[in-house]
Amino acid sequence: MESLKDRAQELQDIMDEFAGAKKNASIFVKEAAEKGDIVIGSFCQYAPMEIINAGGMYNVLLCGFNYDPPIPLAETELPANLCPLIKSSYGNILGKTCPFAFYSDLIVGETTCDGKKKMYEMLSELKQMHVIHLPNIPDRERSLESWKEELIRFKEALEERFGVKITDEKLRESIHILNQERSQMAQLYELGKLDPPAATGLQMRSVLTAEYFMLDKKNKLEKTERMLRLMREQWEAGKGPYRPDQHPLRILVSGAGIDGVVDKTIGVIEELGAAIVCYEGCCGIMNMRRPIDESPEADPMTAIADKYLEVPCAVMSPNTRRFEQLRSTLAEWKVDGVISITVHACTPFDVESKTIGDICAEEGVPFLHVRTDYSPGDEGQLRTRIEAFLEMLEGGR
Amino acid sequence: MESLKDRAQELQDIMDEFAGAKKNASIFVKEAAEKGDIVIGSFCQYAPMEIINAGGMYNVLLCGFNYDPPIPLAETELPANLCPLIKSSYGNILGKTCPFAFYSDLIVGETTCDGKKKMYEMLSELKQMHVIHLPNIPDRERSLESWKEELIRFKEALEERFGVKITDEKLRESIHILNQERSQMAQLYELGKLDPPAATGLQMRSVLTAEYFMLDKKNKLEKTERMLRLMREQWEAGKGPYRPDQHPLRILVSGAGIDGVVDKTIGVIEELGAAIVCYEGCCGIMNMRRPIDESPEADPMTAIADKYLEVPCAVMSPNTRRFEQLRSTLAEWKVDGVISITVHACTPFDVESKTIGDICAEEGVPFLHVRTDYSPGDEGQLRTRIEAFLEMLEGGR
Repeated sequence: MESLKDRAQELQDIMDEFAGAKKNASIFVKEAAEKGDIVIGSFCQYAPMEIINAGGMYNVLLCGFNYDPPIPLAETELPANLCPLIKSSYGNILGKTCPFAFYSDLIVGETTCDGKKKMYEMLSELKQMHVIHLPNIPDRERSLESWKEELIRFKEALEERFGVKITDEKLRESIHILNQERSQMAQLYELGKLDPPAATGLQMRSVLTAEYFMLDKKNKLEKTERMLRLMREQWEAGKGPYRPDQHPLRILVSGAGIDGVVDKTIGVIEELGAAIVCYEGCCGIMNMRRPIDESPEADPMTAIADKYLEVPCAVMSPNTRRFEQLRSTLAEWKVDGVISITVHACTPFDVESKTIGDICAEEGVPFLHVRTDYSPGDEGQLRTRIEAFLEMLEGGR
Repeated sequence: MESLKDRAQELQDIMDEFAGAKKNASIFVKEAAEKGDIVIGSFCQYAPMEIINAGGMYNVLLCGFNYDPPIPLAETELPANLCPLIKSSYGNILGKTCPFAFYSDLIVGETTCDGKKKMYEMLSELKQMHVIHLPNIPDRERSLESWKEELIRFKEALEERFGVKITDEKLRESIHILNQERSQMAQLYELGKLDPPAATGLQMRSVLTAEYFMLDKKNKLEKTERMLRLMREQWEAGKGPYRPDQHPLRILVSGAGIDGVVDKTIGVIEELGAAIVCYEGCCGIMNMRRPIDESPEADPMTAIADKYLEVPCAVMSPNTRRFEQLRSTLAEWKVDGVISITVHACTPFDVESKTIGDICAEEGVPFLHVRTDYSPGDEGQLRTRIEAFLEMLEGGR
C-alpha cells in the first residue's frame, strides 16, 4: 500500500510538473504548430480563453516576464518610462526571443491600459493581431452589450481566419472545462485559509501560471485535482508546508503584472517566514470564485461577456467590485497584513493602490505598498522594506 | 479716418484681451455662480461643450498647468510618476487653488487615459462628478452607438440635476455657435500657411486657450472675427509679425497637454527665430476643420457624437485619422521641421510619437521629440536641443 511518504513524493512530482510547465509548453506548442494546430498568443486575463478553446485552438501566454534582452531592446522603440511587462512583451517579439509568439498564428490583445493599447499598435506591424475593444466601465447596463459584440466580433474573426465553426455547444464544453479550472484555483486558495496554511504562496503562484502553459487541459485538471487532495491529506497528517504548531504571519498579496518580480517580492516574503495566504487583483481569488453561467437557458457568449466584465483589473473605473471583495478577503482569510506590489509605471494599479491602502486602514489591517521593476538593483531595498513590515506585524501580535 | 497704426493698436488690444482671458474668467465665473448660473468644470477636448452650452450652462477649463503648489500636494496622494497635467489638476482641487473648480456645480470627465480615469475616481470624493465613458477605438461601426448613448446619458444627467430641458433646437443653436469658433480657429491656422506667417504660434496658442475662458461667446466670436481681419490686413501691409522678406523656419508643433510647458518649449522655439505655423494633436488644425453636421436632417446628438469621436487624441487606438492628417498638414503648411512635445508619463502621446517620427521620416521632414515636465530644471537642456535642431534645419536649407 502506498504510504504517506510516497504520496508526499507524488505531490512533489506534480508540483515539479507545474513548475516546469512553461518549459514543456514551448516543445508542446512547437509540435502543435508543426501538426497544423492553431496557436493563439495572448497577454492578459481578458483574453477570452473559452472562445479560443471552443475553436479547437491553443491559447498560450506570451513571454513578458524577463528583463534582458527584451527590455533594453524594446526601449529602442518604446519609452523607457513604461511598464516592464509591456516592454518585455514587445521586446521578446521584436527580438524573436519568445517561442510562443513565434508559433502563434494570431495574437489577441485587449484595449486595457494605455501602454498595452499603444504597444499593440506597434506589435501589429510585426505579427497578425486582433485587438478586442474592452470598455472602461464595468457597469453591465452601460457596457455589457458593446463588450459582448466585441467578443462576437473576435469569435467571427477566428472562424473566418481559420475556417472553423465555433458552435454554442463547443462554447458550453469549453466553459465547463475552464469553470473546473477556476473552481480548482478557488479550492487552492481555500487551502490558504487554514492555520497554518496547507499551501504556500509560491505554490499557488506556480499552479496559477501553469494555467497558461499546461495546454493539455485534461491532464492539467486531473493533476490539480490530485494535488489538492494530496495537499490536504499531507496537512491533515501534520506534513503540510508549515509545522502544525507554526502560525506564520498571514499576508495577502495585492497587485498585478508581478510574475516578472516574483523572486524579489513574493519569494522574499515567504523566505522571511511569512505565509502568503491569498492573492488579490486580476489573478486573485475573487475572479476564481464565480463560474461562468452554465445553465441551459444562458446564451454562452452573453455568459462569457458577463464574466469577463468582472475581472477586477484596475483599468476598470471605478473598480468597485475589487474593493468589495478585498474587504471580504481580509476577513475570510484572517489577513495580518497586505502587501501591494505594483510594477513601475503601471498607472492604474499604482493609483488604485491608495484606495486599497485606505480600505486596509478602515479594516485595521496594516498595509505596505512597494513599487518595483524588472531591472536588477532594488532587491536589497525591497527586502529591507518587507522585513521591516513583517517585524512590525510580528511586534503587533 | 482710422489709420493702419490705429488698427495695429486695436489688434494688440484684442490680443491682450485674449491673453488676459483666464484672469478675467475667474471674476466672470464667480459672478455667474453668485447669480445662480450653472458652471460646469472640464479638463479635456472631449467634454461636449455643445451639450453644456445648450443647457444654458458655462463650460470652464479647470486649472492644471502650474507646478507649485498643486503638484507637490497631489504627490501626497497620487504616484509621482504621473503626467503633470493630471497631478496639477488634482492638486489644484485638493488644495482649493482653482477658482473655476470652486465655483463649478459639476465636473465632467471622460475615460480618456489611465491617469485621468483613475484620478477622476479620487476627485469624485472631493467634488460632484460625471464621468463619460469614452470608447478606445474611433471606429464608427464599433463605437459610435455606445458613445452616443454615453453623451445622451450625460445630457439627461444635466437635465435632471439642474432642472433644465436641453432641446434639439438648443443643441442646434449651440452647435452653430461652436462651429463658428472652430471655423475661426481653422482660419487662424490658415494665417500660418502664409510666408512669412501672418500669426505667430504664441498668438495661436493664446486664442486657442481663450476658447475656454472667454465665456461670453458672442463677444469672443466678434473679437476673433475682427482679429483675423486685422491680422491679414497688417500682413498685407507688410506689418505682420515677421518682415515681408523674412522667411523663418516653419515648425509644426505636435503633441498634447503642453499648456503647462509653453514658455520652455513653444516660447523658446519662437524666441530662437523659428515660426510655429500650425499645431497638430488634440487641439490641432485637424479638429477645427470639419464642423459638426448642421444639416436639418441630422440628429444633433448623433452629429455631436460623430464629431467628438474624431478628436485625434492618442488614447484612440489606432489613431489613424491623426496620421493621415499629419501627412497633409506637412504638405499644406510647407513644414520645415516637426517638434513633438510630450509631457512626462503621458504614455499614449509618448508611444505614438514614434509613429509621428516615422511618418516625418517617410515625408522627408526632420523630427525632434522632447519630453518635459512642469517642474523647473530642464529649461537649459530643452533650449540646447531645440537650438541644435533649428540650426540643423537652417543648415539644410
